[in-house]
Amino acid sequence: MAYEFKIRRLVEFSDTDMAGIVHHAVFYRYMESAEHAFFRSLGLTVAPPKTTSSVGWPRVHTEADFSAPLRFEDEVEIHLLVAEKKSKALTYAFRLRKLNTPEPYEVARGAITVVCIKMVNGRMKATNIPKAIADKIEVAPARLLK
Amino acid sequence: MAYEFKIRRLVEFSDTDMAGIVHHAVFYRYMESAEHAFFRSLGLTVAPPKTTSSVGWPRVHTEADFSAPLRFEDEVEIHLLVAEKKSKALTYAFRLRKLNTPEPYEVARGAITVVCIKMVNGRMKATNIPKAIADKIEVAPARLLK
Amino acid sequence: MAYEFKIRRLVEFSDTDMAGIVHHAVFYRYMESAEHAFFRSLGLTVAPPKTTSSVGWPRVHTEADFSAPLRFEDEVEIHLLVAEKKSKALTYAFRLRKLNTPEPYEVARGAITVVCIKMVNGRMKATNIPKAIADKIEVAPARLLK
Amino acid sequence: MAYEFKIRRLVEFSDTDMAGIVHHAVFYRYMESAEHAFFRSLGLTVAPPKTTSSVGWPRVHTEADFSAPLRFEDEVEIHLLVAEKKSKALTYAFRLRKLNTPEPYEVARGAITVVCIKMVNGRMKATNIPKAIADKIEVAPARLLK
Repeated sequence: MAYEFKIRRLVEFSDTDMAGIVHHAVFYRYMESAEHAFFRSLGLTVAPPKTTSSVGWPRVHTEADFSAPLRFEDEVEIHLLVAEKKSKALTYAFRLRKLNTPEPYEVARGAITVVCIKMVNGRMKATNIPKAIADKIEVAPARLLK
Repeated sequence: MAYEFKIRRLVEFSDTDMAGIVHHAVFYRYMESAEHAFFRSLGLTVAPPKTTSSVGWPRVHTEADFSAPLRFEDEVEIHLLVAEKKSKALTYAFRLRKLNTPEPYEVARGAITVVCIKMVNGRMKATNIPKAIADKIEVAPARLLK
Repeated sequence: MAYEFKIRRLVEFSDTDMAGIVHHAVFYRYMESAEHAFFRSLGLTVAPPKTTSSVGWPRVHTEADFSAPLRFEDEVEIHLLVAEKKSKALTYAFRLRKLNTPEPYEVARGAITVVCIKMVNGRMKATNIPKAIADKIEVAPARLLK
Repeated sequence: MAYEFKIRRLVEFSDTDMAGIVHHAVFYRYMESAEHAFFRSLGLTVAPPKTTSSVGWPRVHTEADFSAPLRFEDEVEIHLLVAEKKSKALTYAFRLRKLNTPEPYEVARGAITVVCIKMVNGRMKATNIPKAIADKIEVAPARLLK
């Protein structure tokens, strides 16, 4: 059972905007990449359903608080924590820290809630998280989620 | 004094992902484009500060709830409402509706909080919203913000 | 029969990078949006094939020459011209001009070659452009393609 | 003196489009990330000029040929080769290969020409590549550029 995962990435030129900092929408791509790496670390994938037995994970809620900017070639750590686990949904919390500085500090935090869906007659329908997936994921200790 | 603005856009191919729907991070670009059009409608611009007297508008919080997917060539209306006005910050609420359907319906709603900043010694510093801007913006009636 | 189409768009904040100008990869999104609008103007769509009878249009070659920068809130005209028409492929030429200036001038030109494909056993296979599409498209006069 | 550099990246969900493959404009971001990693490998950066003595590298030409699609979670190698070196410009050639397959194969190749510029009165002006940079870069052997 896993409740957290960390990845690191380098800010790319195309992630920045004319204010000289990472564009706010890009933080959602960063958080998503940690979510997908978390799944890969469990031997899973978030790829959309191709067969009637496979599931997908559309977002129903996302949010972020921004406390400091990120700039080109900054190294950022994205720390994923499982914040909530329901029969058909997962909520992840994220902490983003800038590492390339003497004292690394938080630049943003966020959350993403995904719902487990199947495709039924070409439409998404919420479904129970398959046991093989649910058995690998647990909620992080409360002290880590403060 | 203005408290709302509406724009329409067509979903572009590059806005979609392999799930066949608009990628969630793109909704933040849609909301931002309505914010910038709102400023232009008031004779203003959100361009980053170039002089010591001009101000910028970094985001400190963004969020979105997704209720239905958008697809390629869908027409979407982005309705901006001023939800809160403080001395140094504005919060916008957004309602996104799919129009190209017999009964248009909401696909997402969201919020963005921006802080008014000046550049001081190369760092962003929160500052009062200039009177020339603040005088043009008011909070929307509560009934519209439900 | 049509051989050209023009669209206009306003440069968005998220199109820019830390150099203060539109990121070069974004020009390919601009050109593509003109291609798709051209198809819509003919009552067609470039949406990927969903049935065995429908076709898709992957790119096999794209290129661009950049002569001047575009900036936030610039108005740009994207002029598409059909440069070549083969049984299974189309090449479009593009001219991009900045309009919000006393004397509009070219900022970039480019080309995109697309191949008409069908999905056969889950793989893309080049196929003849359907007559209903081919009959609507002709090559632009040589004088326009210089 | 260096004439090549290789990086690897994993295709991200947000790199894909509704056709289920990496969007063509994203290949230009991939090539650019190899260019910037090449500069970092030489102790350099492509960050835009901040002082009157520093230089920037806007693109004047980019192009790509696409031979096979890339999909979510594919591992791609981006191989940069210095194809041409002039007093004020560099041309890079790129070979992109899909690695997560028994026999890795090329999926795209491309080229980017950048010009060395200084900012003069707020405008970009072509300038000689500084000796400290030029001395570190040489053209790749012709056999590698075929």
